[in-house]
Amino acid sequence: MKSELHVGLIGAGYMGKAHTAAYQSVGALFEPARRPVCEMIATSTDEGAADVAKRWGWARSTGDWRDLVDDPQVDIVVIATPPRTHYPMVMACVAARKPVFCEKPLGMSAEESLAMAEAVERARMPNMVGFNYIRTPASQLARQIIASGEIGEVIQVTAEHVEDYLHDPALPASWRTRVATGSEAGALGDVATHIVNACLRLVGPIESLVADTAIVQPRRDGPHGSEAVENDDQGQMLLRFANGATGSISFSRVAAGRKMGYTYRITGTRGAIAFDQEDQNALWLYDASRQPARRGFQKLLMGPAHPDYLAFNQGVGHGTGYNEQIVIEARDFLQAVTTGESVWPTFRDGYEVDKVIAAALVSNRERRWVSL
Amino acid sequence: MKSELHVGLIGAGYMGKAHTAAYQSVGALFEPARRPVCEMIATSTDEGAADVAKRWGWARSTGDWRDLVDDPQVDIVVIATPPRTHYPMVMACVAARKPVFCEKPLGMSAEESLAMAEAVERARMPNMVGFNYIRTPASQLARQIIASGEIGEVIQVTAEHVEDYLHDPALPASWRTRVATGSEAGALGDVATHIVNACLRLVGPIESLVADTAIVQPRRDGPHGSEAVENDDQGQMLLRFANGATGSISFSRVAAGRKMGYTYRITGTRGAIAFDQEDQNALWLYDASRQPARRGFQKLLMGPAHPDYLAFNQGVGHGTGYNEQIVIEARDFLQAVTTGESVWPTFRDGYEVDKVIAAALVSNRERRWVSL
Amino acid sequence: MKSELHVGLIGAGYMGKAHTAAYQSVGALFEPARRPVCEMIATSTDEGAADVAKRWGWARSTGDWRDLVDDPQVDIVVIATPPRTHYPMVMACVAARKPVFCEKPLGMSAEESLAMAEAVERARMPNMVGFNYIRTPASQLARQIIASGEIGEVIQVTAEHVEDYLHDPALPASWRTRVATGSEAGALGDVATHIVNACLRLVGPIESLVADTAIVQPRRDGPHGSEAVENDDQGQMLLRFANGATGSISFSRVAAGRKMGYTYRITGTRGAIAFDQEDQNALWLYDASRQPARRGFQKLLMGPAHPDYLAFNQGVGHGTGYNEQIVIEARDFLQAVTTGESVWPTFRDGYEVDKVIAAALVSNRERRWVSL
Amino acid sequence: MKSELHVGLIGAGYMGKAHTAAYQSVGALFEPARRPVCEMIATSTDEGAADVAKRWGWARSTGDWRDLVDDPQVDIVVIATPPRTHYPMVMACVAARKPVFCEKPLGMSAEESLAMAEAVERARMPNMVGFNYIRTPASQLARQIIASGEIGEVIQVTAEHVEDYLHDPALPASWRTRVATGSEAGALGDVATHIVNACLRLVGPIESLVADTAIVQPRRDGPHGSEAVENDDQGQMLLRFANGATGSISFSRVAAGRKMGYTYRITGTRGAIAFDQEDQNALWLYDASRQPARRGFQKLLMGPAHPDYLAFNQGVGHGTGYNEQIVIEARDFLQAVTTGESVWPTFRDGYEVDKVIAAALVSNRERRWVSL
Ligand SMILES: NC(=O)C1=CN([C@@H]2O[C@H](COP(=O)(O)OP(=O)(O)OC[C@H]3O[C@@H](n4cnc5c(N)ncnc54)[C@H](O)[C@@H]3O)[C@@H](O)[C@H]2O)C=CC1
Ligand SMILES: NC(=O)C1=CN([C@@H]2O[C@H](COP(=O)(O)OP(=O)(O)OC[C@H]3O[C@@H](n4cnc5c(N)ncnc54)[C@H](O)[C@@H]3O)[C@@H](O)[C@H]2O)C=CC1
Ligand SMILES: NC(=O)C1=CN([C@@H]2O[C@H](COP(=O)(O)OP(=O)(O)OC[C@H]3O[C@@H](n4cnc5c(N)ncnc54)[C@H](O)[C@@H]3O)[C@@H](O)[C@H]2O)C=CC1
Ligand SMILES: NC(=O)C1=CN([C@@H]2O[C@H](COP(=O)(O)OP(=O)(O)OC[C@H]3O[C@@H](n4cnc5c(N)ncnc54)[C@H](O)[C@@H]3O)[C@@H](O)[C@H]2O)C=CC1
Repeated sequence: MKSELHVGLIGAGYMGKAHTAAYQSVGALFEPARRPVCEMIATSTDEGAADVAKRWGWARSTGDWRDLVDDPQVDIVVIATPPRTHYPMVMACVAARKPVFCEKPLGMSAEESLAMAEAVERARMPNMVGFNYIRTPASQLARQIIASGEIGEVIQVTAEHVEDYLHDPALPASWRTRVATGSEAGALGDVATHIVNACLRLVGPIESLVADTAIVQPRRDGPHGSEAVENDDQGQMLLRFANGATGSISFSRVAAGRKMGYTYRITGTRGAIAFDQEDQNALWLYDASRQPARRGFQKLLMGPAHPDYLAFNQGVGHGTGYNEQIVIEARDFLQAVTTGESVWPTFRDGYEVDKVIAAALVSNRERRWVSL
Repeated sequence: MKSELHVGLIGAGYMGKAHTAAYQSVGALFEPARRPVCEMIATSTDEGAADVAKRWGWARSTGDWRDLVDDPQVDIVVIATPPRTHYPMVMACVAARKPVFCEKPLGMSAEESLAMAEAVERARMPNMVGFNYIRTPASQLARQIIASGEIGEVIQVTAEHVEDYLHDPALPASWRTRVATGSEAGALGDVATHIVNACLRLVGPIESLVADTAIVQPRRDGPHGSEAVENDDQGQMLLRFANGATGSISFSRVAAGRKMGYTYRITGTRGAIAFDQEDQNALWLYDASRQPARRGFQKLLMGPAHPDYLAFNQGVGHGTGYNEQIVIEARDFLQAVTTGESVWPTFRDGYEVDKVIAAALVSNRERRWVSL
Repeated sequence: MKSELHVGLIGAGYMGKAHTAAYQSVGALFEPARRPVCEMIATSTDEGAADVAKRWGWARSTGDWRDLVDDPQVDIVVIATPPRTHYPMVMACVAARKPVFCEKPLGMSAEESLAMAEAVERARMPNMVGFNYIRTPASQLARQIIASGEIGEVIQVTAEHVEDYLHDPALPASWRTRVATGSEAGALGDVATHIVNACLRLVGPIESLVADTAIVQPRRDGPHGSEAVENDDQGQMLLRFANGATGSISFSRVAAGRKMGYTYRITGTRGAIAFDQEDQNALWLYDASRQPARRGFQKLLMGPAHPDYLAFNQGVGHGTGYNEQIVIEARDFLQAVTTGESVWPTFRDGYEVDKVIAAALVSNRERRWVSL
Repeated sequence: MKSELHVGLIGAGYMGKAHTAAYQSVGALFEPARRPVCEMIATSTDEGAADVAKRWGWARSTGDWRDLVDDPQVDIVVIATPPRTHYPMVMACVAARKPVFCEKPLGMSAEESLAMAEAVERARMPNMVGFNYIRTPASQLARQIIASGEIGEVIQVTAEHVEDYLHDPALPASWRTRVATGSEAGALGDVATHIVNACLRLVGPIESLVADTAIVQPRRDGPHGSEAVENDDQGQMLLRFANGATGSISFSRVAAGRKMGYTYRITGTRGAIAFDQEDQNALWLYDASRQPARRGFQKLLMGPAHPDYLAFNQGVGHGTGYNEQIVIEARDFLQAVTTGESVWPTFRDGYEVDKVIAAALVSNRERRWVSL
């Protein structure tokens, strides 16, 4: 076994950059058994790829992602391109037997995601899907606390992922607002997937739901004049979990003022936790067993005593940010590849999220509760 | 017209005490046109009433509330007894032509509430129902801001009224947990009425909803051993408003850690507001029209520039609390009686809330959306 | 002994109103052994006094406060007039043997305060000075926590009372900004007295200090044109306490944005507490003995388990405000009169505060540490 | 000119690791004109250095830092070793004409710092000292706001850097608690330097100060049994700035509960800003010119519209953490080397901080105000 892992990255946009920085620093930060090497980057054109390779520090580049996938020097592949390209890229990785990390959402539909999950499983290939928010030290701690029974049985969840990136009606139409290029699910297919993922991870499987979505800004300017917005700007759903807990999720891309409104409050029979991604270094914990005069939510500021924090900082409260989530993701993917055992969240987990989204679309359309 | 208004109060429990203190201080605080006099208090027994009259400063007392209602010295009646007594008391007030304030919830059912509303309307009698939380300066300001169009058209509401007063499973069964003495609606009939009222007041009529409730603690100890809890401990609902806004409400009496979790975030096309009753002297305002580098929620600390604050304090941030809400209520009721024009929220408004609660019960039972 | 206590109030301004409402509702709220009766109010003129008596509900009135003090029906006296009137009024009360409550600051100077303290002590008369902020349930709880040793020995205090009531340079000169009618100490003589009082109450005697004050707005418009501001707008001091703790206090009347910035963080050898009067229903507690992963400040929302809360509310987090502080003050003063034993803070405590203020003036003037 | 800059790093502890990750990712994140290459790392031993080089990804290593400084392949040097080693290393860099970055505090004394500052200035060599906290987007924005006059003239500063890393009395003595190996200034020489630096940067030169420090835990266990703690655990000082503003600073290493309590509130004639490093992605802004009913601190969540944020994230509120501060530092140092013009904070700025610390030591010892 080579001591290094040569990474191929497809996509040089927002997430491509984040993954680049992550693979460059994860070696020093986490000292993985096999250090990554930034081997090759692919974008849509040879020139573009060459340029970004030089600027960002990738050894080689290509304008054809198939070259990258098939390159014998490339050990593992990271896909950070728009959702509609994920399926062919993943299938090519499977064919080439390259462990693959794919950005969220996994597929364009639950069916597509299932096909991808089954493909990697059949091939017994390490795989991972990019739900990064749940990887903050605070959300990992939330999981520890719930799993250990510290707040008892979970009885209720109030969660949301609301942002306002499309609040301004002057913002133009884009692939995001069209069904053909984006998804039938607007905010539902975008931000909601993160918080659905969190609910599944922290509380467990969802049994049934009822959803309601709305288009708030019915038309936006497109390249050929005003065009219809084809998918939801916002919505909410009620959830019933397999373990008996109930709850609700809100999601929005037009929630004026909320920038990273990924929040949850999870109540149990012995306490509760609360989290707001806009203050991602704090987890709030309530312990109902204290004496009445000393009960109250406690603000736990992340530190070396919490999951995956020490790799970044020795001091409590020094703080991690968005990019650290991507570094943790890289560490986990490298570990999965090294051990041969996939690390959560796998493609199957991505599919589980897509199933919930699909059910929400049905529920909204048919105005009824839907079982999963 | 007498310059004073002689008040008769029925009930000497939690709310009876709050109304007592309110009628004693409202004169100095708001200087109403007609000052109230604490004339008579009624409880279940003559002795108990006499005792509390002496302790709290009521001129006279009675163990029979009908005496109070019919007493010629009593000008107006305040009802602060358990819900199941409201109907006969209100009807007696109508018969005696006494303007009447009644604690929430108005009736035991929407039908009962409607009958009471129609009775006072037919009699053209000033009437009011006790939704106090919406009377904080902050929530009054919220209404001003929305009504003025400052945040544009309302598009979304995320609200809740969650407390944990029954979180502890060792707490006994009570009238609250039984249908016969309490209501088919548990947390739904209790805390949810306040936040439904807020939604109606701040956003407008609700057109349809889907609700889901749950009993978390199925049995509690009663006087004759363990007995079944008969109504909901918690729940949530999705709302569609007549004006097109959508939203959700959570409600709970077992939400560990939330003590006065009456909160709302209301998003509009030009901004948003957010409120949490646990910090009742602040309203958060987001103005989307500012330049990007200067956008953010602003914490408005209540002060003399805000509704009904100056009567209590001359300094910003000195703070008002629960009891001030009851004083504002008293001021409004006195004004209604003086002018002959009812002040919001009337019995009809109480009925509107009860209609929503009734629809939620149907929705939960039949697992479907219900139109109002 | 009469079962009631007939109150005489001097002053019908901001605090006069607050004391009126407090004496009207304290009977119902706290059920003191002897209920207060609003007997007589005095202001500067007969007409003004008569008018306010009618509006606020006082039985009688006078334009000459000496009549009130000497009135045989008046059992106890509350002084809520500007500081320069306190001395003669208190001395008259002593002469008339009337227990006396006096608003802060007690005297115009430490000397005056000492004379007043000695007078009431010699006469063995119940007396109290009006430091209300320290009477919130949260600040009472702070004292309990410190006194019980829960946070260990106090080692450090960071405190402030900063407001911005004179931040606007367009605000006119007034008695507050002149030495002759106000004090040599501006913000120092006003807001700082509250927080010095808190430090003395919570931590103990101050041994030495160094202070630095500043006039930020050197001139303001007066009735005869622009005039000099004669006392400090802001300042800060370092403190050494008798018990070895050290700390600092900031004070200001021009602290833009801070409205009721009465805050303290008190650190001990085993934990810490923190408080901000702008959120007066919460006390933050840190317990250093918890395991590292569960350490963090805990937000204790005031409730029935905390000092003096239950009289106002049965529910945690329902909240008390400024006026409840005055009610608690009234309860304490009534109790002092009933038992004959003064309740903290007495005139002597007021004098202790004035001594610290006087030392700060010397320290600022002479640019040096001053021992007390 | 080579297109790359080959970096030599001395020290492989806490900060050595942070600088490693920063130089590895700064290229992709900021795309500097000259990309850094991790050329050589030095620690105390050849084996240790070789090991860490392999683990972290440095091309070469050495157990003798002089080899590194003199190596012709090493273009620039980053010093991340304990303070007492800074002076010889810096002087060697000057001799070798290698631009040098040095961690804070620059020297062991103001004299040493001055010598280092003069040496690099004489040599006209790019140089920088490592005050990272002031580099958050929020603190950079604070500077922009103040510099632009948006809050008017600064009148007051309340600041602190308080942590609790030595709160536990069971923690052993170390170089930090000894004068010979650490400094005469304990918390003062450590955390206080960061916040003094912030005050100088945001408000301007300090003219005079009075300081008071304390040893809270007089003895700690050392390798040879209990030994005396020789420098301060905590303290506070009053400041007078050249521009007339006044203020105070608290500093502590035993402030139970505060983990990264680097905070400031800066008040001006037209508004104020407030910041707390424990929530480093928010800056609070108060604009006094708004109408009274709309005044209040506004929470600005950092985003692409704020300084140096976009390099890390495209979304507001996604958040940066401690390590991003070090990346910004690296970007600035690379830029300084590329342009030949030092970027703030230079060694001279480090010296300015040390001068304030030295004055505080004198002030504390002699119990008096000290002019700078
Ligand atoms: N986990 C998270 O927080 C986030 C995840 N995402 C996800 O990451 C993925 C990428 O999104 P962004 O980076 O925002 O997109 P982007 O639009 O910024 O960048 C997309 C990149 O893909 C490249 N690309 C597109 N088609 C290609 C092709 N056929 N061959 C090679 N390269 C191609 C483009 O050249 C571009 O470099 C999406 O699945 C998105 O949902 C996006 C933002 C945040
Ligand atoms: N607006 C708010 O925030 C709150 C409203 N409430 C409402 O106020 C009402 C009263 O609740 P609480 O004060 O908590 O109840 P409680 O149990 O503390 O007091 C009830 C009082 O009614 C008296 N009473 C009962 N039956 C009577 C009768 N037949 N004749 C005369 N007196 C009778 C009892 O003697 C007792 O004094 C209820 O409708 C409740 O829903 C209660 C708490 C908060
Ligand atoms: N504890 C606290 O939070 C506060 C305490 N205070 C203190 O309360 C006292 C009064 O302040 P405010 O109520 O704000 O003043 P104000 O100016 O609002 O009212 C003063 C009242 O005293 C009356 N008065 C003045 N001279 C009099 C005389 N010779 N005879 C009879 N009445 C006379 C005036 O007619 C007026 O009614 C002061 O000592 C002040 O420092 C004021 C505000 C807050
Ligand atoms: N800017 C900030 O936030 C912080 C700055 N610092 C500063 O960074 C510097 C280093 O501190 P830490 O990383 O915490 O120390 P550390 O003790 O974790 O690491 C020190 C490193 O220096 C190496 N070293 C010591 N003497 C050496 C020598 N003669 N030759 C070669 N290598 C040698 C050691 O082998 C070790 O790798 C100090 O000046 C400290 O004040 C430390 C922590 C935070």
